[in-house]
Amino acid sequence: MLEDLKEEVFQANLELPERGLIKYTWGNVSAFDKASQCFVIKPSGVGYAEMKASDMVVVDLDNHVVEGDLNPSSDTPTHAVLYKNFPEIGGIVHTHSTWATIWAQAGLDVPAMGTTHADTFFGSVPCARVLTQDEIDAGYEHETGNVIVETFRERGINPADVPGVLLHGHGPFTWGKDASSAVMNAVVLDEVCKMNYYTRQLNSYAEELPKRVLDKHYLRKHGKNAYYGQGK
Amino acid sequence: MLEDLKEEVFQANLELPERGLIKYTWGNVSAFDKASQCFVIKPSGVGYAEMKASDMVVVDLDNHVVEGDLNPSSDTPTHAVLYKNFPEIGGIVHTHSTWATIWAQAGLDVPAMGTTHADTFFGSVPCARVLTQDEIDAGYEHETGNVIVETFRERGINPADVPGVLLHGHGPFTWGKDASSAVMNAVVLDEVCKMNYYTRQLNSYAEELPKRVLDKHYLRKHGKNAYYGQGK
Amino acid sequence: MLEDLKEEVFQANLELPERGLIKYTWGNVSAFDKASQCFVIKPSGVGYAEMKASDMVVVDLDNHVVEGDLNPSSDTPTHAVLYKNFPEIGGIVHTHSTWATIWAQAGLDVPAMGTTHADTFFGSVPCARVLTQDEIDAGYEHETGNVIVETFRERGINPADVPGVLLHGHGPFTWGKDASSAVMNAVVLDEVCKMNYYTRQLNSYAEELPKRVLDKHYLRKHGKNAYYGQGK
Amino acid sequence: MLEDLKEEVFQANLELPERGLIKYTWGNVSAFDKASQCFVIKPSGVGYAEMKASDMVVVDLDNHVVEGDLNPSSDTPTHAVLYKNFPEIGGIVHTHSTWATIWAQAGLDVPAMGTTHADTFFGSVPCARVLTQDEIDAGYEHETGNVIVETFRERGINPADVPGVLLHGHGPFTWGKDASSAVMNAVVLDEVCKMNYYTRQLNSYAEELPKRVLDKHYLRKHGKNAYYGQGK
Repeated sequence: MLEDLKEEVFQANLELPERGLIKYTWGNVSAFDKASQCFVIKPSGVGYAEMKASDMVVVDLDNHVVEGDLNPSSDTPTHAVLYKNFPEIGGIVHTHSTWATIWAQAGLDVPAMGTTHADTFFGSVPCARVLTQDEIDAGYEHETGNVIVETFRERGINPADVPGVLLHGHGPFTWGKDASSAVMNAVVLDEVCKMNYYTRQLNSYAEELPKRVLDKHYLRKHGKNAYYGQGK
Repeated sequence: MLEDLKEEVFQANLELPERGLIKYTWGNVSAFDKASQCFVIKPSGVGYAEMKASDMVVVDLDNHVVEGDLNPSSDTPTHAVLYKNFPEIGGIVHTHSTWATIWAQAGLDVPAMGTTHADTFFGSVPCARVLTQDEIDAGYEHETGNVIVETFRERGINPADVPGVLLHGHGPFTWGKDASSAVMNAVVLDEVCKMNYYTRQLNSYAEELPKRVLDKHYLRKHGKNAYYGQGK
Repeated sequence: MLEDLKEEVFQANLELPERGLIKYTWGNVSAFDKASQCFVIKPSGVGYAEMKASDMVVVDLDNHVVEGDLNPSSDTPTHAVLYKNFPEIGGIVHTHSTWATIWAQAGLDVPAMGTTHADTFFGSVPCARVLTQDEIDAGYEHETGNVIVETFRERGINPADVPGVLLHGHGPFTWGKDASSAVMNAVVLDEVCKMNYYTRQLNSYAEELPKRVLDKHYLRKHGKNAYYGQGK
Repeated sequence: MLEDLKEEVFQANLELPERGLIKYTWGNVSAFDKASQCFVIKPSGVGYAEMKASDMVVVDLDNHVVEGDLNPSSDTPTHAVLYKNFPEIGGIVHTHSTWATIWAQAGLDVPAMGTTHADTFFGSVPCARVLTQDEIDAGYEHETGNVIVETFRERGINPADVPGVLLHGHGPFTWGKDASSAVMNAVVLDEVCKMNYYTRQLNSYAEELPKRVLDKHYLRKHGKNAYYGQGK
């Protein structure tokens, strides 16, 4: 089942090392199928060189393997929580990409310092809190998903406008309309983490991008008045 | 029309990812044809892998598409303003290259700290101000061009001597006698932004290159007494 | 003798430049054979382009060459001391990889700032002291091994839990169950040195990963309750 | 004439972009022939893609072109002064490699912070002063050579022990017994500039490598008691 989606998820996983987002098997991509309410995800700990499209695992929203011979990514329960709570998203990426992980380890939100950020993220990318011992005991990966959802709800952020999050002490999750756009958002997040780090080191008085420019750049690419690209 | 220039602009666009200046479609190159008073520019949001020379768009100085099936780059009006006001230039490049964007986000001019800078830029590369709300409303990309022109006029900088600018909060534009030299100037600008950042971090007392060395290096490569290369 | 192990050590040595851990011949990998109590190691100062599997040198735990026409790595005595004292390890890697060397030159232990660290190292990676003049005179490479062993004994660190060390002023050694996992640990150590450097620069108040998360991440990949990967 | 040396110099020039030391044509390599007292050097401003071994230019120690259709590198007079004054050297490299240039722009000597440095440079790499206006007028490239020689003489540094220098505000020159070892020394210098920068940023109290370790590492690779590598 879902052979096309498996191929898509497989290709998106291969993009992670190609674009320098991961080393070894430190990442995973999934994509959601609305019709079956299942998602396709990378198997756990399988090397990218030997991995095939048919190794992708089909999982339902309760984390049951529906099809596949291999164990799905150990982060599967986090993906499931996000698909359940953010119904507008079709693909999810987790990496330990260097710069996003640095901000995650520093425990800081990533402010919008420039238009590279504004073209993709409509405001700061939040850093979610560390899990408590009780949450870790209750199910680390599932509760990680809950803490992400809590972060967006409490701060009133629309996950469609800010398609990514940092997990304090861990690394980034990004999402998008499909697997490929979730990968692109992972690339952008890593790059703006790099740029924003150096901007603040270069000029500690550097200010966030004015709201008028944030709006202009985000809205010329997203929403009903967007005019970037070749239209529909 | 302008088939040779289309090929040249196409090749110069391909150089952007090859030289590590851009990710995805975050950049554009154009070149100007004096005879027709038109320029050739990359189409908007088209991936580099699928792009062909015949996809390049021919545009006049009033931003009308003269030939081409695709929308031109959303930054087209900025290019048009520069070709109108800086008649000595034949090619323009816009990127979000990492180091130039860092200085742009910091809102700082790039001082000449060494001969790598002096070989290409005859003094500091200026950082142009953020647009006002009125300017954004009047036409963001067109007014971006006007702010660049204003910056060079007000500061009395000759755009032939300093072939590039930073846009505060955004990124660099560079130019040159043709598309290929504009790309080279984009590479140099990014590299000197990197070097100059680290120079100041390493030694906060580091001073700008003495004027006598700036003159020597710039003038041994440019102008009527240049002796670098195989020239005539 | 040990033709399979020679091939394995040869391939693991080739991984060092491929993964960006070394330039020229600045590194070496060995692997241990329990049956013969010998180890196979890279020859000294031989370039990676011209090196063949048959050039690998077989050495016993007293540093005698058992088979091979070339001189073994000048660091051979350090490897021998580690195999003698850390009987659980099957492979050793030495490099001058950029980021691990930076921490070694700074003379600092590498704290666990994130889960990338916790997935591989169960706590800080220690930095071993500089050798005394007497130790250098007694046999620099042999005494280097002794100082590593002393560091783990005095601090009560299990080398199976923390498979690596920094040598103050020099660079890293890592180890693992075999040559290939020792290389992986060298990659991880370099990456966490990079991430942890920038984390502290970005936020000087950033704290080490809470023990509960360190435990969770290390133990979901290692030990009898591990559930990462495809199991046995 | 000197066809073998031309091939050697050509190959060494190609190594500069391959090893990430230069962009475009920002570097040059030469090698000296004792018999003819001439040296072979890269032509000025010729791109690496179109360059051939036969384009290399033969020049004597008074900067006269002895053979070749192209102009030699504009830095030729600097090379000539070094060959005249440092008779033990057989190859010279000039680049604007990023990290060595950063230290040159900062105007600082590069201290020996670790064994990566000590394996190649027997002490600090000096930063030579900026030329005066009179020196620039008298012949910039020739006087650059004189300032390098002055730096080594005044400080009592043997150019065979410390095969490189930084030019304040400009970049590095390195040398060696031949073109290929001069390139290797350029790679090492760039890497130690990078490592030493980050070492000091990470730990501002980090000290230089103790003399006993500097001696040990330098002398195990150089001089009559060297035991690194496969001997003679």
